[in-house]
Amino acid sequence: MKIGDRHYRTIWAEDGVVRIIDQTLLPHELRIVPLETLEEAAHAISTMQVRGAPLIGAAAAYGLALAMAEDPSDTGLERALQVLLATRPTAVNLRWALDRCRAVLADIPPQERAAASLREAGAVADEDVERNRTLGAVAADLLTRIAADRDHPVTSTAPLHVLTHCNAGWLATVDHGTATAGIYHAHDQGLPLHVWVDETRPRGQGARLTAWELGQHGVPHTVIADSAAAHLLATARVDVVIVGTDRTAANGDVANKIGTYPLALAAHDNRVPFHVAAPGPSIDFGARSGADIPIEERSGEELTWVSGLARDGSPAQVRVTPETSAAANPAFDITPARLVTGIITERGIAQASESALARMYPEEAGAASNGPGSQPHQGD
Amino acid sequence: MKIGDRHYRTIWAEDGVVRIIDQTLLPHELRIVPLETLEEAAHAISTMQVRGAPLIGAAAAYGLALAMAEDPSDTGLERALQVLLATRPTAVNLRWALDRCRAVLADIPPQERAAASLREAGAVADEDVERNRTLGAVAADLLTRIAADRDHPVTSTAPLHVLTHCNAGWLATVDHGTATAGIYHAHDQGLPLHVWVDETRPRGQGARLTAWELGQHGVPHTVIADSAAAHLLATARVDVVIVGTDRTAANGDVANKIGTYPLALAAHDNRVPFHVAAPGPSIDFGARSGADIPIEERSGEELTWVSGLARDGSPAQVRVTPETSAAANPAFDITPARLVTGIITERGIAQASESALARMYPEEAGAASNGPGSQPHQGD
Repeated sequence: MKIGDRHYRTIWAEDGVVRIIDQTLLPHELRIVPLETLEEAAHAISTMQVRGAPLIGAAAAYGLALAMAEDPSDTGLERALQVLLATRPTAVNLRWALDRCRAVLADIPPQERAAASLREAGAVADEDVERNRTLGAVAADLLTRIAADRDHPVTSTAPLHVLTHCNAGWLATVDHGTATAGIYHAHDQGLPLHVWVDETRPRGQGARLTAWELGQHGVPHTVIADSAAAHLLATARVDVVIVGTDRTAANGDVANKIGTYPLALAAHDNRVPFHVAAPGPSIDFGARSGADIPIEERSGEELTWVSGLARDGSPAQVRVTPETSAAANPAFDITPARLVTGIITERGIAQASESALARMYPEEAGAASNGPGSQPHQGD
Repeated sequence: MKIGDRHYRTIWAEDGVVRIIDQTLLPHELRIVPLETLEEAAHAISTMQVRGAPLIGAAAAYGLALAMAEDPSDTGLERALQVLLATRPTAVNLRWALDRCRAVLADIPPQERAAASLREAGAVADEDVERNRTLGAVAADLLTRIAADRDHPVTSTAPLHVLTHCNAGWLATVDHGTATAGIYHAHDQGLPLHVWVDETRPRGQGARLTAWELGQHGVPHTVIADSAAAHLLATARVDVVIVGTDRTAANGDVANKIGTYPLALAAHDNRVPFHVAAPGPSIDFGARSGADIPIEERSGEELTWVSGLARDGSPAQVRVTPETSAAANPAFDITPARLVTGIITERGIAQASESALARMYPEEAGAASNGPGSQPHQGD
């Protein structure tokens, strides 16, 4: 996607160096960080310079390629896999990407591993881009239909109002994003759009990342407090809600960033469509329902300290609670399938039901029915 | 209420000086500010050193008393009324308190006005305290009943979990608070309680004020992101929700801090009782429904800049959004009566319906039926 006039991916390789956008510094500073060693790649994942499930997978694959350029021996391969797996132990895409690379590398001679692992990392990244691009076209068709059906015409002064939560944008993927993919696609096609961006406390992925992305791409948007979304829905200022998902269960229950469930309740109460952008790999047919998805509890410090830019332009943090008050920070919630209008995938839009999802992904659903899933919940 | 071991009101007079707690500095600094002149009182209201509807009314009455000690002439009286009315032009309690004082002062000689206005300010404050104390006893009875009915016993290790939003605490009143009045009352009676405190973005009245109040009084509590409340409700970690109200319509629709409506939806979806603490003066029988209550839109800067304490202990603000992103900040929302389990008043608990509220306040309901209300919406 665009930053200023230039096209970027969140991760790319050139001349033996992998480069990433350091997401911990956004929106206040755009810094491209080179990764030249396994250790630098592992550090980038563990410190969340790169984050978002699809991007973590690609970063791990590129990290393995850097390792193979240094030490392509069997010992070097096993060590690199262990180092990378330990960076974000709960991220399912990390294991998926590394298992895939290991399968390619295990059976070829060490001297071929550097080139092969770089090719495989590129393939992981390219497939993510292509999947999100296809999903974006599906979502853009949906937005265009919703715009056409609106009782007052969509114009540049009365754009289609889309509301989103967290960052399921291109920064969470290699490119395009998931929830935002259709927004970018429709915007580029000329559909007048305006996006309400939930700030997404406590980490502020909406305020910091989604707002920045949309601004760089020229998509009109307005940041709101998470708790203001319901009021906007109740006062007819939202035409459609689209969010991403960290994991969607076989029955259509959706695990996503904390605050997604009350947002879905408010959309439902006001008869506004609520869609979830879920690329195939995010649907876990091993989880029968949301009850099978554990919810990560993160540090309360994410809530009690807020990061930003001080008046003098320097990065700073401020404490917003009394020192003696406890804080709790569940990072995800479960939106029941009954509140979900549709699941947008790269294969089309499915109802949030077990039968509809199984029809769309028959192989994955069939494989899962042979045994319970064991994928842990992945964080952002 | 208690700060440390000492009892405080939010405003009090002694030896000709009015004193307040400067709420803009909480929770990081407790500073008692003396008000010696009309201008100092007006400044305290306009800069929100004192805030919360009932407290604004009392502060205006005390400000008038300070003015009468300086210049009790008819000219001085009219000037003081104008200065005070201009501080928070939309605060209905401000006008109510000043109208009440004007009625007392207009018919007495100037030389008696200083003493009379100080007495009247004391009466406004004392009546607020008494009303909230009575409401607190009603609410404590409710909490005790909910505790007794819970399927697993309430003990010190499994306390009654109350969730609240914003600050409807003693800091918003002269003492006791509204939503918190029952919490303090029941806590003091020995009922094991734990309070989930919504941080209440964007101004953070929960994180800054409610958490501080509860901590000072020794009530166990945990601060959460506003959007985490629904997840706690869905996972059976909340027994009852109690919030305050800025204005409740005749039909039981509740205007309160932004985020109250989605909280009520989540409570309803999980069959958790959702109660509104509404002292008589906050029920506006001139507003037939929530549609008659205008919603204040405040500056987006309240969202884009976050205030707190820097690592070095100094007060600081940080910007949390890109400079080029717009922000919207509706300050209140309307919770439909259908989502409200009960309206807790100083006269008992009413259903959120026109007939039930009119039965509880027959005089006020009758007076309002003679003409439409013209009370503007009051802010916090």
